[in-house]
Amino acid sequence: MHRLLAPAALSFLLLSSTTTFVRAQDAPAPPIDKRYTDEIKKLTDLPAVKKAFQTFIDLEPQTKQDLITLTETPSPPFKEQVRAKKFAAMIKEAGADSVWIDEVNNVLAKRKGRSGKKTVVVEAHLDTVFPEGTDVKIKPKGDTLYAPGVGDDTRGLTAILAVLKGMGKVGIETDADVLFVGAVGEEGLGDLRGVKHLLRKDGGIKPDSYIAVDGDGISTITHRGLGSHRYRVTFKGPGGHSYGSFGIVNPHSALGKAIYHFTTEADKVTRQGIKTTYSVSVIGGGTSVNAIPYESWAEIDMRSESPEKLNQVDQLLQTAVQRALKEENSIKRQGPDLTVDVKKIGDRPSGRIEATTPIVQRAMAVSKFLNAEPHLEVASTNANTPIALGIPAVTIGSGGIGGGEHALNEWWLNDKGYLGIQRILLLLLAEAGVGK
Amino acid sequence: MHRLLAPAALSFLLLSSTTTFVRAQDAPAPPIDKRYTDEIKKLTDLPAVKKAFQTFIDLEPQTKQDLITLTETPSPPFKEQVRAKKFAAMIKEAGADSVWIDEVNNVLAKRKGRSGKKTVVVEAHLDTVFPEGTDVKIKPKGDTLYAPGVGDDTRGLTAILAVLKGMGKVGIETDADVLFVGAVGEEGLGDLRGVKHLLRKDGGIKPDSYIAVDGDGISTITHRGLGSHRYRVTFKGPGGHSYGSFGIVNPHSALGKAIYHFTTEADKVTRQGIKTTYSVSVIGGGTSVNAIPYESWAEIDMRSESPEKLNQVDQLLQTAVQRALKEENSIKRQGPDLTVDVKKIGDRPSGRIEATTPIVQRAMAVSKFLNAEPHLEVASTNANTPIALGIPAVTIGSGGIGGGEHALNEWWLNDKGYLGIQRILLLLLAEAGVGK
Repeated sequence: MHRLLAPAALSFLLLSSTTTFVRAQDAPAPPIDKRYTDEIKKLTDLPAVKKAFQTFIDLEPQTKQDLITLTETPSPPFKEQVRAKKFAAMIKEAGADSVWIDEVNNVLAKRKGRSGKKTVVVEAHLDTVFPEGTDVKIKPKGDTLYAPGVGDDTRGLTAILAVLKGMGKVGIETDADVLFVGAVGEEGLGDLRGVKHLLRKDGGIKPDSYIAVDGDGISTITHRGLGSHRYRVTFKGPGGHSYGSFGIVNPHSALGKAIYHFTTEADKVTRQGIKTTYSVSVIGGGTSVNAIPYESWAEIDMRSESPEKLNQVDQLLQTAVQRALKEENSIKRQGPDLTVDVKKIGDRPSGRIEATTPIVQRAMAVSKFLNAEPHLEVASTNANTPIALGIPAVTIGSGGIGGGEHALNEWWLNDKGYLGIQRILLLLLAEAGVGK
Repeated sequence: MHRLLAPAALSFLLLSSTTTFVRAQDAPAPPIDKRYTDEIKKLTDLPAVKKAFQTFIDLEPQTKQDLITLTETPSPPFKEQVRAKKFAAMIKEAGADSVWIDEVNNVLAKRKGRSGKKTVVVEAHLDTVFPEGTDVKIKPKGDTLYAPGVGDDTRGLTAILAVLKGMGKVGIETDADVLFVGAVGEEGLGDLRGVKHLLRKDGGIKPDSYIAVDGDGISTITHRGLGSHRYRVTFKGPGGHSYGSFGIVNPHSALGKAIYHFTTEADKVTRQGIKTTYSVSVIGGGTSVNAIPYESWAEIDMRSESPEKLNQVDQLLQTAVQRALKEENSIKRQGPDLTVDVKKIGDRPSGRIEATTPIVQRAMAVSKFLNAEPHLEVASTNANTPIALGIPAVTIGSGGIGGGEHALNEWWLNDKGYLGIQRILLLLLAEAGVGK
């Protein structure tokens, strides 16, 4: 998960046992329509839901063991197979009607609904950012569990396991089918490939709503997908001696020109409207100070909530690169032309659903019911993909408190973590409808 | 030594035992004034010189052993001490009147002249390009000796040793003092620091002429010093998340702008006049595609025979860097300003002496006398420094055939290598005057 604000204030208040969580945010929280508050209240009055809430508390030792088992099953980027198999076995055991692993190693577990006319996805991601060979052994310090990936997003996987177990134990039936998913490739260069495959146009599923579980706490609701495009631009020429071969094309000169044109134009178009960003992030190339390089490359990141703005900045990059190529080739005095390769290395769709959409209203009402202040967020999560496809979707946290995501000292503390599981259940039931 | 043309044609002809060497060159060789042809002829008629010529041939086994000993004494950049001590002992043994090692590890060996009113330097460089730990053991294949540094410039060191030995054996007296020098820091980032120290304004020597011995064969005469300036430009900012910290200064954007302004302007001023070159050669910086970098750097090389043109291009770089700094700071939306560090990492003076200058005419006449076609060159050698100071200077080869300079498979073949030693003696005697 890629959050954009550190939940420091929230963490402090949770730690200090205050039951009402307050958090600074960009805009005041929009109102919650009374019908959603009533709807959630009504759900929590059901005896089966009351029993499920208690069950999650009773299951805590087992949920903790699940977290240890899964965290200690490494799941490096693009190498989630081992954890996928483990998670598939665990979710089968937890009571799914059918479980399968798809072509990209997503784990899918179906729990049939009464009518099965609709499908609700509840998903957490299998992958971590940590490479093969990282020590993923859990190191407890007091009640806090330390290990790479423990919070992001292994806790999410165990939370949805607990939801499924609890539903089975108390016999809750939904109207819609529920598809529990462990998704691959959420992080970094994974580029949301698990959810993209799941919802692919040709052969993917078409859920009616999508609940991604990622991050900690019970306040945050990500309903705006921060889209991003990432490129690696590489100019290539023959290379040669800085004096003897002078007059041949210089790839660094071309890259400099491309950066100049791109950043000069991008600065202008990002000064108004929805926040849209660009960054020339990493550059390289060249072998020696006395040699014209044969290669010059840059990695560039651009982000926006607005697909239009994102495409606009993207177009500025394409234009700048071609213009630089032309300029550098036009001043060459000998040798072959420069060539350029523009490779898209990241593509996360952007989009937003309004705070008045039922799924967002319900998620807010659930937080309120659990005495947490709902906080609406923009982030880059698996929900980006369904949101961009027009599917009602949010990403919500899985309870407890966590920190150090993407760092070796990542930690998660089970501070009333059962609230996170109760929250997932309530939102799921509101979206899927209760069968009996 | 940094030559600008591979002597392939020359090598072929030497290998094929042709006694007249022909070589492609940019401009036809200028004429040699008859007085210099006569002067050299007269020198070679002296009985002592005839005896010295034969002595060099007799000394060949010893000269070969010197080459093995010195090549196998490593002399990495900035770490020439061990070889300097060895060479000092050998040149003392060879018959110098006094030998000392200066503050930077240059070896100086004086052979007094009759009047001693003038001083002629005969120099080869001690340093190799090879780092500590390189295997420098000589590997013979047939008559060819393979080892890193064997030709460039260890052969030069042994050639000047042989000249001194021969002069002693046959009792040649010069009018001027002769200073034999093993110089440090000729290669790469050594940046000619040995010869710069030797000829420093404050406390250095003031020779009347300067003969650098570097490279193979008996044809090449470097009389034009290709000057160069080299810079490492580093822009620095705070760095941050590509979305969360957007609006802070981006060092890569600034570098791109600097490259754009520099290369656009430098292209214009290098289209006319003496060949002057520039190259953005190596760039780097940045940690991750989703992070605004805290640093962006480039290494830039510029060269010219003309000090004025070199300074003109240098000034364009300084202006471009400051302009880019200003532009990038002017569009920042938050955070501190960018800073820039411009570090000069190389400074080789440029200059030329005319082909009509006595030292060049004499060097040409010597080649002709030895049945070689003189070839005038522009290169970056130790002669750059005296040339820039107005001291008559050339760099000449030390005989034989070599190849693979700066590569691990460097080689040198003693194909009539004594001709190279005879050549150094003749040019030295012409410059220093024969005492008796």
